[in-house]
Amino acid sequence: MYDLTIIGTGPAGISAALTAKARNLNFLWLGSSALSSKIEKAERIMNYPGLLSVSGKDMSDIFKKQIDDSGIEITNAQANAIYDMGSHYTVSASSEFYETKTIIIATGMATAKVIDGEERLLGNGVSYCATCDGALYKGKTIAVVCTDKNFEEEIEFLSKTASDIHLFTTYKEPIIKASNIEHYVGIPDSVNGSLRVESVTYKNSVIPVNGVFFLKESVNPKVLLSGLAMENNHIIVNRDCETNMHGVYAAGDCTGLPYQYTKATGEGNIAVHSVLKYLKENKE
Amino acid sequence: MYDLTIIGTGPAGISAALTAKARNLNFLWLGSSALSSKIEKAERIMNYPGLLSVSGKDMSDIFKKQIDDSGIEITNAQANAIYDMGSHYTVSASSEFYETKTIIIATGMATAKVIDGEERLLGNGVSYCATCDGALYKGKTIAVVCTDKNFEEEIEFLSKTASDIHLFTTYKEPIIKASNIEHYVGIPDSVNGSLRVESVTYKNSVIPVNGVFFLKESVNPKVLLSGLAMENNHIIVNRDCETNMHGVYAAGDCTGLPYQYTKATGEGNIAVHSVLKYLKENKE
Repeated sequence: MYDLTIIGTGPAGISAALTAKARNLNFLWLGSSALSSKIEKAERIMNYPGLLSVSGKDMSDIFKKQIDDSGIEITNAQANAIYDMGSHYTVSASSEFYETKTIIIATGMATAKVIDGEERLLGNGVSYCATCDGALYKGKTIAVVCTDKNFEEEIEFLSKTASDIHLFTTYKEPIIKASNIEHYVGIPDSVNGSLRVESVTYKNSVIPVNGVFFLKESVNPKVLLSGLAMENNHIIVNRDCETNMHGVYAAGDCTGLPYQYTKATGEGNIAVHSVLKYLKENKE
Repeated sequence: MYDLTIIGTGPAGISAALTAKARNLNFLWLGSSALSSKIEKAERIMNYPGLLSVSGKDMSDIFKKQIDDSGIEITNAQANAIYDMGSHYTVSASSEFYETKTIIIATGMATAKVIDGEERLLGNGVSYCATCDGALYKGKTIAVVCTDKNFEEEIEFLSKTASDIHLFTTYKEPIIKASNIEHYVGIPDSVNGSLRVESVTYKNSVIPVNGVFFLKESVNPKVLLSGLAMENNHIIVNRDCETNMHGVYAAGDCTGLPYQYTKATGEGNIAVHSVLKYLKENKE
């Protein structure tokens, strides 16, 4: 029986694992030893304290070295289901079952609908982070695909940097208005380009762009754990990263905005401290 | 008028400043260009994602380089008071006044406790700023309460103005020596006076003074900003780092446990994203 199972190998999971190790917890860490493909593909991260203007690849390599040097093992397996056993949980992952007293869900926000070319050109003109990559498109033409009005302040930021924006929204009336924004309702059919983004295709017309920002949320951790309280596709947590379920915590993008590495690592740390408190209070 | 004023140069303030810079905010950063003496004194940090088993000194040096390379300026001044002006705030720091739309308080845990009478007589003989108020005590007798040797140059300045100084230090051997300084180890029990400071009480003896200077790393937030909701010496915030006051956010140790660098940087980041949302919603 593990004290803790951490699900996810993005920044929140990494932070949780480092703190769990520092606190000598008997823990299982499920995910990918390649860590998060989203980190690796980030073009450049400017605002992570301690890592000066790193590429996603550099950041990922630094994290990998830190995990290895700390003697932490990653179990390469994807969690498919979590079962509430009353006094503990059973996690099903890649046809194995693991018993655990507590869980930290740090699965990030996987993209629900991926359009043609999006995944292939991620890091080569396709970005999920205006704060991170916006500055790369100063004076350039970009497309922005937005699925939620909550992201519109990101568009505003981009509109001050890029010269022209082709804005695609899944909803009808965006709040933002700017002379350099042309608005379309719907999402493009594809992102095109051989090595880098060159254009997007929308209703049979090809629109040349230098980059595409996807501002969207996706995937439902509800599938993972029945009964987990969610709101707007995010797991509901309090300031201690506690979910509505006894012994289950969540950290990182899956708990909501801002989708930022620093926010995610902070929550991974907080979640482990909440686990420590839980284990102390629920000793047999 | 600044969009944002960040108060504090520990991990939460550093994270906030890096993100404010990445988002092109017009911001003021008040604190010390030496950053936080508490970071520097940490022996070894094992669980900060991205920095493998660093000493506090190394971490501090990395942060300093990152701040410099990012072209961020620190205004070396301690915030003494924040005034709510209705539609904005005025921050008083080292005899200057700054106007700002929003504030992030990232002052760390005020380790020095607020003594009886200190808050009530602030501005009536109690001061946190030697530079601002020293001249008011020319030829007079004052008490100085000092919590860190770094502040001793302030005492030297005061010793050239005041006729007599009763110096209380939380550490044993102050470097400063002057014929008009009488030294005590420990802090007074209370500051006394009905309308203005008349004396301090120390170990049952009453020492008449005209004023009291408290030289400490950070002013307790409840003294800094009247009306700020606190609980157990921590600023009450929600998951967005919002305090009970319109446009005022808090991040890092001042918001509560766990006292961890990773938690602090995470909150600094979150707070800036909340500021961005606030500025968008409160545009003139």
